[in-house]
Order: sequence, then C-alpha cells, then structure tokens
Amino acid sequence: MFQNFTVKADPATVAPRLKALRAAMSAENLDILLVPHADEYQNEYIPACAERLAFLTGFTGSAGEALVFHDTAILFVDGRYTIQAAVQTDPACFGVGDLVNDPPISFLARELQPGMRVGFDPWLLTVAQARRLESLCEKTGAVAVATQINLIDRIWTDRPAEPMAKVTLHPVSRAGLAASRKLAAMAKNMRAAKVASVVLTDPSSIAWALNIRGADVSHTPLALARMIVPARGRATLFVEGAKLDEATRAELLALVVLAEPDAFEAALATADGPVMLDPDRAPALVGVLIADAGVAVVEARDPVIAPRAAKNSIELKGAAAAHRRDGAAMAAFLAWYDQQDAATLDEITIVRKLEAVRTETGARLGMPLRDISFDTICGAGPNGAINHYRVDEKSNRKVRAGDLVLLDSGAQYDDGTTDITRVLPAGEVSDEYRRHFTLVLKGMIAISLARFPSGTRGVDIDVLARKALWDAGFDYAHGTGHGVGSYLGVHEGPQSISKRGLAPLHNGMILSNEPGLYVEGSHGIRIENLIVVTAPKPVPGGIMPMHGFATLTLCPIDRRLIHRKLLTTQERRWLNAYHARVRREITPLVESEAVAGWLEQATQKI
Amino acid sequence: MFQNFTVKADPATVAPRLKALRAAMSAENLDILLVPHADEYQNEYIPACAERLAFLTGFTGSAGEALVFHDTAILFVDGRYTIQAAVQTDPACFGVGDLVNDPPISFLARELQPGMRVGFDPWLLTVAQARRLESLCEKTGAVAVATQINLIDRIWTDRPAEPMAKVTLHPVSRAGLAASRKLAAMAKNMRAAKVASVVLTDPSSIAWALNIRGADVSHTPLALARMIVPARGRATLFVEGAKLDEATRAELLALVVLAEPDAFEAALATADGPVMLDPDRAPALVGVLIADAGVAVVEARDPVIAPRAAKNSIELKGAAAAHRRDGAAMAAFLAWYDQQDAATLDEITIVRKLEAVRTETGARLGMPLRDISFDTICGAGPNGAINHYRVDEKSNRKVRAGDLVLLDSGAQYDDGTTDITRVLPAGEVSDEYRRHFTLVLKGMIAISLARFPSGTRGVDIDVLARKALWDAGFDYAHGTGHGVGSYLGVHEGPQSISKRGLAPLHNGMILSNEPGLYVEGSHGIRIENLIVVTAPKPVPGGIMPMHGFATLTLCPIDRRLIHRKLLTTQERRWLNAYHARVRREITPLVESEAVAGWLEQATQKI
Repeated sequence: MFQNFTVKADPATVAPRLKALRAAMSAENLDILLVPHADEYQNEYIPACAERLAFLTGFTGSAGEALVFHDTAILFVDGRYTIQAAVQTDPACFGVGDLVNDPPISFLARELQPGMRVGFDPWLLTVAQARRLESLCEKTGAVAVATQINLIDRIWTDRPAEPMAKVTLHPVSRAGLAASRKLAAMAKNMRAAKVASVVLTDPSSIAWALNIRGADVSHTPLALARMIVPARGRATLFVEGAKLDEATRAELLALVVLAEPDAFEAALATADGPVMLDPDRAPALVGVLIADAGVAVVEARDPVIAPRAAKNSIELKGAAAAHRRDGAAMAAFLAWYDQQDAATLDEITIVRKLEAVRTETGARLGMPLRDISFDTICGAGPNGAINHYRVDEKSNRKVRAGDLVLLDSGAQYDDGTTDITRVLPAGEVSDEYRRHFTLVLKGMIAISLARFPSGTRGVDIDVLARKALWDAGFDYAHGTGHGVGSYLGVHEGPQSISKRGLAPLHNGMILSNEPGLYVEGSHGIRIENLIVVTAPKPVPGGIMPMHGFATLTLCPIDRRLIHRKLLTTQERRWLNAYHARVRREITPLVESEAVAGWLEQATQKI
Repeated sequence: MFQNFTVKADPATVAPRLKALRAAMSAENLDILLVPHADEYQNEYIPACAERLAFLTGFTGSAGEALVFHDTAILFVDGRYTIQAAVQTDPACFGVGDLVNDPPISFLARELQPGMRVGFDPWLLTVAQARRLESLCEKTGAVAVATQINLIDRIWTDRPAEPMAKVTLHPVSRAGLAASRKLAAMAKNMRAAKVASVVLTDPSSIAWALNIRGADVSHTPLALARMIVPARGRATLFVEGAKLDEATRAELLALVVLAEPDAFEAALATADGPVMLDPDRAPALVGVLIADAGVAVVEARDPVIAPRAAKNSIELKGAAAAHRRDGAAMAAFLAWYDQQDAATLDEITIVRKLEAVRTETGARLGMPLRDISFDTICGAGPNGAINHYRVDEKSNRKVRAGDLVLLDSGAQYDDGTTDITRVLPAGEVSDEYRRHFTLVLKGMIAISLARFPSGTRGVDIDVLARKALWDAGFDYAHGTGHGVGSYLGVHEGPQSISKRGLAPLHNGMILSNEPGLYVEGSHGIRIENLIVVTAPKPVPGGIMPMHGFATLTLCPIDRRLIHRKLLTTQERRWLNAYHARVRREITPLVESEAVAGWLEQATQKI
C-alpha cells in the first residue's frame, strides 16, 4: 500500500526536544528560530529526513511552521489542522497559531525588538522568503541569522537518511522531446536573454529537462538533484552517484557532467554570470553563495515552468492512455462499491480497495501503478465537508445509509498522472443532496464547455464553475482547477483556474476541473475531471477562433445523484455524450462482464 | 451646446513651435523632453491651458505623449488615434509611435545613453511615473531633470488662462453626509494609521470630501484645488479666492482654512509628518517638496477613493432620480428618432438633438442639465466599430438604411451622473446584426442577474458578460464596466468589471454594464446600463447571502434588434420585467402623448 493510516505523534517527546533545541539556540546566541515545513528543494511532498517540524512539535500535517522563542513557542497551522495540531503537540510547549490570518511573519512584526537575533536555515527558506524576513528584521532593528547547520538536525540523533532511490529514464517515447533538445532550447533562450547560467533547484524541473524520474519523495516521481545550466557548454547535474545505475549514468553522461551534491555550493561560486535563479524556488543560500562570489544574479521564473506546463502531443497521448487505464480501475472499483452494503464500509476500507483495484488494473493492462498521486481523500458524511480531509485510524468513519462519500484520488503511471473526484451515495440519498450535487455538476460542465480567446487566464473563467452555486447561495473556498504534470506533480504551475490564476491558458496545459459544495457538519460534494486546453478553432458565424477544453478523465458521474430537471438541454447533451464516450472507451478495458454491465448501466442517457 | 465638433489643428504651426521648444531645451541643457497629455491634477478632462501636447504637436486626442529629442521627435498615441495623429501633426516634425505596445518609457529604455539629460515637468508626472523615469535613467546612466517652469509654457505666448469657474456647494441633502463628518472620519482613520497629514491633490477627492462642485474642466463638475488634511485640527484648502462667492466662502470657512494655491508648496514643507500621499495621484513635485523638507512620507491610496465609491442611500436616491429624468430624455429622443427617415440624419445631427432633448427635459423637470458627462459617441455603420469614436465635422457620417447607430452618452445633473449606450437601427437591419445584438444583450443581462458572495472582485464576474460572445466566436477589447461617481466623474475607481478589476465590489458602488461586439469596417454594438451593487441577501435553499445588482438606467432596449429565440426564458423574463419597470417609471415623466405612446410600444413584452 502507498497510503498509510497510522499517525505517529507522541506529545511526550515534545518537551525534551524543545529544551534541547533551545540549548542549541543559546549556543548560537539566537532569540528566535523559524522552523518551516519545507525541505531543501521546496518539494510539495518532503522526505522523512526533512520532517523537522513533526520531529519538534509532533504535528504531522502537510503545512505548518513553528516559531520558537526562549520563553514561548507557537505552531502555526491552517484551519483544517487546528484540531489535529492541538492533539498532536504538547500544549504546554506549543501554542497553536493561525497560519493564514496571522502568519509567523505578522507575528514577528509585532514581537521583534531591536537587537533580537532570528535564526533560519537558508536551505529551507527561498530567496524571496528570506528577503521578506530580512526586510522585516531591518525595519525593527532585529537581525536575521542564517544558521550554518540546521539546529534541529543537531538534536535529531536518529534522523532518517536522505532518500537514495534509483533514478530512472523517462524515454523520449513518453516525454515526446529529447532532453538534448530541451537543453538546447533552454540555452538558446538564455543567450537571447543575455543570461550566462541558470540554476535549477526544483527536482521537477530537472526531471522534465533531463527526461528522468525518481522515487525520493512520496506521490511524485522525483529524484532529489540540482543543476547548473550554462548558456554555452554542458550542464552539470548534482546528484548522488549511488542513485544511478550503469545505463542511466551512461545516458546522462551524453547530456551533462555529473557531480556529487556536495560539489554544488562550490560550483555556484564559479558559475558564469549573470546567473539566473527563481527567487520563489531557489534556497536563500543559493542566492547568497552566488552574490558572495561576486557573480551577477538575474531573478526570473524557473525557465522550465512554461514549457513543462504545455504538454506536447506525445505527452497528451500518454495522458489519454493513463486516464483510460485509470477509468477502467475506477469502473471496477465503483462496480464493487455498488455491490456492497455501504453501511458495512468505512473510509479506510474504501481507500484500500481503490488502491488495490488501481494496482491490479495497472498490472493487468501492463502499466503498473507507480504510486498514488496524493493521499486519497475519502470523506463520509460530515468528513466530506472538511477541506483536504485525510483519513487516519482515529478519524476513520463508518459510512451510514443516506451519506454521501466524497472520494478524491489519483495515480502515477509511467505515461501520466491522474486526479479524479467522484461522490458515492450510500443507498438512497436526500433530494437536497441531489440538488446540491446537480449544482456542482452544472459548474463542472460549464468549464468543460467553455470557449475562450487566446490570452484568457484562469481567473477569467473561474466564475463559470461557480455561477450555478452562487445563484443558489453556495460557494466553495478553494480554486476550481490546478495544473497537473505529465508523470510529475499532481499540482503544477503556472496554470490554475482560480482567483489567483493569472497565467494565460495555453494549448496542451492539463488542469483539474473540480467545483464543490460543502455543508459543514453534514456533507461535502466535489466532482473532478482533468481537462486539456485545446488549440483555438474557428466558431461558425464568429470572427475569433476560440480555445476550449478536452476532457481526459473517463469515469461515470453518478446518475442517481442528478436532478435531471435542473440541467439545461445543453448540459444534458454534454453529460450524455460524455457517458457514451466513457462507455465506448472504457468497456474494452474492463476485466469482467460484471463491470461491463455496471458500466453499461452507469452510462445510460438521462 | 456642450459638445463641439470642430477640430482645430494646424500642422503648419508645429515646426516653429518645435524649434522654439528645442531652443528652450538647449537653454536648460536638456537632451530629451517628455510632454505628457496631463494637467497638474491628473484630471481625466484637462483645461485648455494644460493642452500643451496639442499646442506642440497639433494632436487633439484625449490620450498621448510626446518625446522630443534635438534630432527627432515622436508623438505616441494608441490605436484609435493613429490616423488622426498623422493628419493633425506635421509628419516632418513628429513620427507617430505606439503608446500601448511601445510606450515612451520602453522607447527611452532603448535610446538613453549615459550622461543624457531627460527633462520633465514634476507637476505633470505623478510620484510613481517620475520614479519609473528616474529608475530607468539610473540604470542607463542618464539623468532625469525636473524642470522649474514648464518649457512649453515658456514658448506658449497666448496660453489660455487657468480656469476660474465659481465653486458651488453640493448640499448635504444630495451628498447624504456632511463634509464635517467626512473630514472627521478621515482624521480618525489617519490617527489609527499613525499618519499626521494627508495631501489630497485630486479635485474629485476634494469635491467629495468638502461637498463642493465646480466647473473648471469639461464634463466633470470639479474645482481645481488641493488640500492638506491634518489628523488633528483644521484642513487647509488651497483654491483661488476668486472662485468663491460670499456664501460659499462662509460655508467653507466653517470647515477649513482657506489659502491661495501659491501657498501650497510652502505649506507642504511645514506639514506634520508622516504625510500620506497617493503616488498614483500626487504630482512628483509634491513628493519632492515633502522629502526635501525632511518630513516623513507614507505612500498609500488616496483615502477618499474607498468612501466615495460606495454611495450612501441619499446619493443612490439622487442617482435613481437622475436616471428617471435621463430616461425621460432618452425616450423623447428615441421617439423622435423613430419618426425620422434615418437616411436623412448624420452623426452630428443625432448628437445635437440628444443634447437638446436632455437640456429641454432637465429644464422641464426642474433639474437642469449641468453638462454632458463625456463627448457623446455616435457611430453610424463602420464608425460604430471604432473604440471611443468621437464624431467631428470631418468624420461626420450620414446614416444609411440598414445601418446600426451606436450611441453612447451621459449627463451631469446635480443629483447624479448618467452613462447609457443604445443601438439605433436605421430601418430594417440584417438578421446577422440582430443575432449579434442579442449576443451582446445576453451578456448585459447576465451581469444584471449576477449574484455573488462578499469579497468578489470585478475580474471575477467579467466573463459573465462575455460568455455568450465567446461561445459564438466574438469578444470585445474593453472592460465590461467602470465605476461612476455621484455628480462627479463618469469614470471613477476603484470599482471595475474587467480583467484588471481587482477591487472587491461593495454595497452602493455604481458601475456601468456595457458589453459590446465590433466588426471592423461594418458595425458596432454596445448596450450599457448603470447598475448598483446591492447588499447581500439570503438565497432560499442556500447557505450564503449574495450580493447582486440593481439597474439604474431606465430606457427601452430596441426589441426590433432582438432574436427572441436566442434568449433563454430567464433572459426574456428579465427583459420583460425591465421594460415594464421602464414604462411604469418613465411614462409619468414624458411630455407628450406621442412619447408615451412610443414608450408603450417600445416596452411591449417579447
């Protein structure tokens, strides 16, 4: 199993660790220490050796930050983790703060006094984050101090080893473009921008540029590595030699110079300037080392972000195949679910079954499930209304008759990354639930049917997904869609359909389309397909060609949850065509007649 | 008549004036001079004495900027003025540049050489604009030089006098809030923000804060003035004493200290710090004078912008009355138009008639037309497709049978500002035109019917107005809605429904709702109503209260231009209810049975 449901946290460990940390702070003459939930690569999923916040505070959530003073300490978490944080940490040691409405930087702004020394690990804050901290310190007369060695690592005697998974090659037959050509294009752009070197510190940028994958972190096939790319000549990849087998090493040596990670710092000082780095991705230390060497720095967005986001036709074919396979797994799973008495199930059982079916289906169809693309969100009844709810052994809830079960999951296959949300009814559900489900569906269909001119940004179309909900007095407190990688991160920028979605939507970008409706303490609904931005096409009778979306996800949307009369003719037509396509494309891939029969039934016209 | 149709421009004057200017530049040792189209107050409509760009270049458009070098000179204009600029200026003197795609600042970035001296008038650039220029000069080793006296004023021997219109009081019965209370609230906010003084340099902020109006510029009832407001004690208003009659002076003296404008510069140096100014509104010189005096500056948005935008109930009652009156004028005008043989009309005739009807109607209903709120846009046939087309004697076009005439106009009354666009058919028009009109109408209705949660910004709903057009392969290259003042500017921030509309929409904000469709060389369509943001109301069956819009504009939308079957039931219902309301509210105000009969007919159900 890729997902585990145990939550290890022992509040009794917190006090002695905090005491030891304060001693280390005293040795460095620090008044305050920042402890972010981040690794040295700004990964979304961080390796066990980087779980310093959990080691210190006991809190195991996916986002948070601590501020340690000598006489107090605060653990900042967002709304979804307030209860969990209070349970996992020792309240005698850590107060719980609000990461969103009163984040550490605001808290510091009030507390800093002239002369105070604020420690941070310059590997864990980005250039931009460290700059904000330093500017705040400057204003208040305090001093931001970059620590030489992470102070938690000093007291963490049994800290896990750095991950050392093998690097694998992502063949050009899947990547669609040879790494040599990607590097050549990058170098050409650098010469045009008069930049001599680029430092890449984001493992997913390196994975894309070199057509490699890894397994150093959960849920995303990344190899932890860094790279310096000169505008002329060979790039240097800094990666543990032990991660490379002979064939991979040979392939990489045709592209780059290989170096061990500990050579990276020295190499920064000798890089050709001007050196370009992304202040929102690069560790603060990278900026400091380059500047200290007297090399000019140009700050700009990681140059891989734009080309990675717009998938080529080979990647899109891979995505389509991955979604057919994932659709076959979902059909088998949903057919199984419909055979159960829902009231005998609980959330963990559902998550385990889904993962097992994905594993079996991948194996049967010759493309193994490499990982789930994130911890499955399975929320029965009121748990469905908790944003980013992640079931564990304590929270695990039994499904009750009449419940809605919100199930948001995804897979990593060699040819693509999936992310899908469906709502499972436990028997007959209320008319109100069906009305709510249909309102969400209307938003999902509106995005699916959208047409838009070139230059349109995600923020410009976000409301299409919300309109039916707003009209009915609902909204959802999350974006409508995030970017998705090609056998890479399930959350990928810059594309986004949301109030912060300022990147224009280009051909080939993959996004999620996932409006929702949540009634606290009662139920949650979300329907999610992945979609691809299509090229502009002329519209008969119009004067401007328009982009649109093609849907990747192929899985029935539960007809029993739909209020037919709330749909317009156009919406019904979309749904019926979608279901006909699901039946046509998925039926050949299912294993049993029983699943085929279920699919036949689940995709009937409404 | 408030609008005039003559365009005075004599290319023969350009060469001698440019020569004289270059001599003045040499005397100041300047290599380059910036000549913006701006006055000392950053007004939208600038007085004749500030038309320096027109004096120098001959170009009379409403936006532009010139860069004068010793060996070349460029007049930058946007797309709508390219042809006009080439005709009005002397092409041997001025090349025409692209104000949008290659603005002066980009041009300078390429041309600046170390040591070059770039002159600008620090009254005419804002703090932020001057800062951009200075930062560009710093990068290139050039020097930005603030001139002591405007160099054009030195050579402009018959420059018109500064406007000296009387200041009038805007009674609290219209403003809804006494000036004393506005000033007290501002001072309270300043104390909370630890600001000792605020400098107001925007005449519309002063008009709002002091409940005064003026007539120093066209189309907006402003008195040119500046004000320094301390957090404790009396504000000082810098205004020409000659603009104040006895009663106004007495009223103002109860609120503020009065000073002549020439005392303003010295007063800045002695203002209590920190002084707050708006870098996007205040002249660069204001920032320099404060800084030179060693007084601390806090940059923030003009504190009047937010309260001015959200109209109180008295202002909204005034707006409603102004729109009923304006609706009666529009009905009389449209009834007249329908009696004409359209092919005997031209654009100027239409504009004159509309202005005459507004004048008569205002007089008849006891509330005189103070001004039109902008130069009426009347575009017949292909002229309708030109963004911001302004008819003059040369461009004036005869209406032809089958044309659409786009008519965008507005009025200033003591109780409110109006802005309305309707499309007038010249006899029978094509089915295609009717389809296009209906698509625009669908967008206009979508905004009218919108519901949205608190915190929603204009950018978040802009697409509602575009969706029907995008679906059909059309778009429009302008925003959907701008803010409108209360007997103040017809373009007022921060509210905006557009891709740049980042201000949340608050109760009482007045906006335009004006989608369009333009086919170059053929026809233009725009339908515009003014709307007000309404307070959040619960939605039956929902969980969040929702804002909406109430429509202010009361004027029939031409039913002959509507393809009934392209409208949904909900859209038809909105239109029929709107027309019933127009009939009910406007009929009592029209003068003749003929107009009442026309209104009856024009507001029939479809």
